[in-house]
Amino acid sequence: MSTNDQSLADSAERVIAELRELAELTSDEGGAQRVAWGPLFRKAREWFTDKVKNELGLDVRKDSAGNLWVTIPGDSDRTVIVAGHLDSVPNGGWLDGCLGTLSSLEALRRYAAQEEKPVTLTLVDWADEEGARFGRSLLGSSAAGGTLDVNEVRNFTDRDGVVLAEALKENGVDIDSMLNAHGELKEINAGAYLELHIEQGPVLESMNKPTGVVLGTFGVERHLLRFTGQAAHSGSTPIPMRRDAFLAAAQFALEVREIGLRHLKPGANVVCTCGVVDVEPHIVTAVPGVCEISIDQRALHADVLAAMISEARDAAAKAAKHNDVTVEWTKLWTIPPRPFDPDLIAICEEAVREVTGDAPKLPSGPLHDSAEMVPHMPTAMLFAYSSNGLSHCKEEDTPIEHLDKTIRAQLLATEKTIAHVAKR
Amino acid sequence: MSTNDQSLADSAERVIAELRELAELTSDEGGAQRVAWGPLFRKAREWFTDKVKNELGLDVRKDSAGNLWVTIPGDSDRTVIVAGHLDSVPNGGWLDGCLGTLSSLEALRRYAAQEEKPVTLTLVDWADEEGARFGRSLLGSSAAGGTLDVNEVRNFTDRDGVVLAEALKENGVDIDSMLNAHGELKEINAGAYLELHIEQGPVLESMNKPTGVVLGTFGVERHLLRFTGQAAHSGSTPIPMRRDAFLAAAQFALEVREIGLRHLKPGANVVCTCGVVDVEPHIVTAVPGVCEISIDQRALHADVLAAMISEARDAAAKAAKHNDVTVEWTKLWTIPPRPFDPDLIAICEEAVREVTGDAPKLPSGPLHDSAEMVPHMPTAMLFAYSSNGLSHCKEEDTPIEHLDKTIRAQLLATEKTIAHVAKR
Repeated sequence: MSTNDQSLADSAERVIAELRELAELTSDEGGAQRVAWGPLFRKAREWFTDKVKNELGLDVRKDSAGNLWVTIPGDSDRTVIVAGHLDSVPNGGWLDGCLGTLSSLEALRRYAAQEEKPVTLTLVDWADEEGARFGRSLLGSSAAGGTLDVNEVRNFTDRDGVVLAEALKENGVDIDSMLNAHGELKEINAGAYLELHIEQGPVLESMNKPTGVVLGTFGVERHLLRFTGQAAHSGSTPIPMRRDAFLAAAQFALEVREIGLRHLKPGANVVCTCGVVDVEPHIVTAVPGVCEISIDQRALHADVLAAMISEARDAAAKAAKHNDVTVEWTKLWTIPPRPFDPDLIAICEEAVREVTGDAPKLPSGPLHDSAEMVPHMPTAMLFAYSSNGLSHCKEEDTPIEHLDKTIRAQLLATEKTIAHVAKR
Repeated sequence: MSTNDQSLADSAERVIAELRELAELTSDEGGAQRVAWGPLFRKAREWFTDKVKNELGLDVRKDSAGNLWVTIPGDSDRTVIVAGHLDSVPNGGWLDGCLGTLSSLEALRRYAAQEEKPVTLTLVDWADEEGARFGRSLLGSSAAGGTLDVNEVRNFTDRDGVVLAEALKENGVDIDSMLNAHGELKEINAGAYLELHIEQGPVLESMNKPTGVVLGTFGVERHLLRFTGQAAHSGSTPIPMRRDAFLAAAQFALEVREIGLRHLKPGANVVCTCGVVDVEPHIVTAVPGVCEISIDQRALHADVLAAMISEARDAAAKAAKHNDVTVEWTKLWTIPPRPFDPDLIAICEEAVREVTGDAPKLPSGPLHDSAEMVPHMPTAMLFAYSSNGLSHCKEEDTPIEHLDKTIRAQLLATEKTIAHVAKR
């Protein structure tokens, strides 16, 4: 083992110990409870802030949106950003979000100890990535990215009726000035952005690989379809006279899977899902007169996503016609794909291959704060293996040997990225 | 117009006038409110009983199950039974059930006025055909038919928590002796049973025919299937790794329709319906891990019904295998088909053809009290045209010219049946 190998192994051990310390501090028998803007979220951030001050002698700056920033200046103001988020869902796992923040903290420690600092290294701990309490995910990063519509979220309430603006105020964030975080981000001379996260899916597990290089975050087309036919008595209405809205939806859903499979190519992974289905009148003895069904299509490339949604519209029209029903579409949400930077992807691949022997590439189905950074700077991400693909639950896990390798790969990727940015 | 033609026309006019009188007496702006065992149900039966006493000088006998019987004895105790039911669903139509009772009353009037009475003619007004309040349809006729399981229904409650046994007691029926109605039925030397009902479906309307001859009531196989796969994140789970329970159910439902169409032959109409569909976790961004779906298959012939349910079981197993999920079946309800008597069907055809010029034959999808009589005596039914196939709502209707013809056909069929039974 080389000196750097030993040093990376020590670093990984320290990060894992700190992840356990954080879990001890902010979890209960149900899992992690660091829901953004609440007391355990603040406790986690205080613990983090103390570490930064005591060990590194650095200040933690809070931006206008409540994101935390820690900076180690270098010879150049050209900056590499490393990121994560300390907030969790209720009853969350021990890795989601904080794995990024704590491996980034270790990257700062390592850089602080280095003689030569050609560039500036900055950690960001994003606020309210999960949106678990108010329903708006990527809150802090979308403010920094400049895409947040403050008036849209201002009056979002939690289950106790507390308004978002009030919860932010309790945490020292003024909703009316939170978009200033965007100007603050633009002041950074950012050369690269790196984030580490648990996969939250089964792909690395299925390949038995500890670490993956992320190609980008999927674009999403999310809609609700309403097929309308005619409810009728199941006993007295002959099949050829029916206008069965559910059978139209069933035909549509099966075709949507075919659309997904048709566009599924190595390196251009796509997904298509019908997750919500509701029939009316919902009676055993009645032909469904109405069926509402959701569609969620995701792809890494905008042209593929556009083709898939167009084919889904055709499939819905065809299913409606075939079953003598009508169909209406309601848009729920869309976001364009955010492919990551090819140079950074290559650097990450190199680092992951050096540590793990292989560098599988995969897109990210879930969104991440990194998606908000793509328009502003070269961005990349690594994923850690997810046991059983489980996420947002206390059973979320990465086996220790895989976690160790992934943290080492992330730290190595950070070093390589610093060298890359310094050269340009 | 012959004398009998004129007399039948007068009879139909009288029945229609009485249907309107009953509607006036027992409906509100929401429709008919003669829900079994309640005050308006009793009011309708008192009105009926008064008519029988005042106009015909006959007594109304209540059997042990609360069914009402009126008998005109003839030269022989060989009996023709004519039937209907005065009870309705809440917010029901003006024809469902009472069309049968009031055209049967008119048949009694006509028979009473006749010099020659070769056989006995008996009217039965079945109690609680709809099961609208306690959920057990054909209550009175199944007691008379001997198929009622008293202990199964004893503690059925209405939405106010009233127990069936109590509601029966209020109406002079003792639940513990209601099955005596079966012995009382067996004492009748029954030679034929005729019932007239509104179709409650779109078949006669689609042929533009006022009256149909019913071939029998469908047998029913009614089950709930539970497909179980694995819930998963819609963004991070590649399609080939999914175990989508909804897509299995969708594939099953489409195949169930194909099964129905395969067995759909002239004179052997069948139906197959999936009316209830529920997915879990019912989230736009989650692959459904569970899907429950109902199946309701009906056919007039036992061998066809057996083939259809067997093919449905194969289709479910195939859909489960194809989607890597499991499937479990729960029986909701089954009843064998009740084909009607060929001789009586021929007599009904003759009468319907004489009055309307044609005699379309169709099976009954909905159950009727007649189904309970099939094992005990030759049975047949006529259907009246349903506007828009609507049923169990205030919009239920048969256009007057079609209603007129149907009542005339039913009265003529009764006369022909009396002559047929007298000959044997």
